[in-house]
Amino acid sequence: MNDKITSQHVTWHEPTVFRKDREKLNSHRSVILWFTGLSGAGKSTLAHAVEDHLHKNGFCTYVLDGDNIRRGLCRDLGFSEADRTENIRRIGEVSKLLLDAGVITLTAFISPFREDRQIVRDLVDEGDFIEIFCKADLAVCEARDPKGLYKKARAGEIPEFTGISSPYEEPENPELVLDTGTLGISECVDRIIRLLEKRKIV
Amino acid sequence: MNDKITSQHVTWHEPTVFRKDREKLNSHRSVILWFTGLSGAGKSTLAHAVEDHLHKNGFCTYVLDGDNIRRGLCRDLGFSEADRTENIRRIGEVSKLLLDAGVITLTAFISPFREDRQIVRDLVDEGDFIEIFCKADLAVCEARDPKGLYKKARAGEIPEFTGISSPYEEPENPELVLDTGTLGISECVDRIIRLLEKRKIV
Repeated sequence: MNDKITSQHVTWHEPTVFRKDREKLNSHRSVILWFTGLSGAGKSTLAHAVEDHLHKNGFCTYVLDGDNIRRGLCRDLGFSEADRTENIRRIGEVSKLLLDAGVITLTAFISPFREDRQIVRDLVDEGDFIEIFCKADLAVCEARDPKGLYKKARAGEIPEFTGISSPYEEPENPELVLDTGTLGISECVDRIIRLLEKRKIV
Repeated sequence: MNDKITSQHVTWHEPTVFRKDREKLNSHRSVILWFTGLSGAGKSTLAHAVEDHLHKNGFCTYVLDGDNIRRGLCRDLGFSEADRTENIRRIGEVSKLLLDAGVITLTAFISPFREDRQIVRDLVDEGDFIEIFCKADLAVCEARDPKGLYKKARAGEIPEFTGISSPYEEPENPELVLDTGTLGISECVDRIIRLLEKRKIV
């Protein structure tokens, strides 16, 4: 076969490496673990704790959270309803790329709107999107207030703050509900790993 | 240690798995291979051929191209200069995430503007961004016209088409220049692999 790049050889334009090949190379399936819940409910903490566990066991992982998204890909977006929707849309699209790249992708965003989460779920195949609802009472989250955001929101310094001045729409059929207001981290991690085992992902 | 998720235990919020850990798990460094050049110059063909080679040798790879970006993350963008700049910015940010995820990331976009490519280069550390200029004459690319785009552009059906009605700014100091107008694919792939070997990436 002549290997010149010509329009006659368009097959060369096509990918030859697919998700299933990357999963085979990595020796595990990829999936999106979508953590949702109020600020302070423990999404990021849990995502990193699960990543830690998975990585130590040889799995390819990546966490998308405010730190690497809001300062980068979504730095042009604010916190209006439209911008939040666009924020989640982009995170969904990036998660889909990482999924295709064979990576177990963990996302830690409030993602307060049911419709936005549904859009992400619909981007991928059945079973590729695992919604984990970090369910902690507002009072608990506000008492923790690790970043001092609730205090600022109560003072009116942060407009449209989820739970205070903007709604959080609880998931109706999440794959997993974790009472992060009372459960310890280890227990939450265990439950997530058990779910992944049950689904033959790990 | 009490493993409750509380604000007293903020260390748990922090990532414990970093790029170097993922690279160690994968047994190779990650890098961005940024292919740039005219439509028809062979960027996507080459990116997929290099991915094929790397994957067969056990490397974690992913190709970003029009197929998975323009229909997804950047579906809201057109081809005006501003939209092209935003398109490349987002691709750069996603490449940075994949780099951090430990993946050898290959991008195949015309990326005609020098400043836009520089912005991506500046997003990452020295050595993480390898610019590969697929240098083929406009006449060659137009003769190939694998997608029939030049024909449409000449007919005025595609505004701001690079090389016809919009400029292509050649890289001034790319890490690699490949004369894709005359070289065969195997030769181009070999040169890229040799560069990666020289840089101790593969």
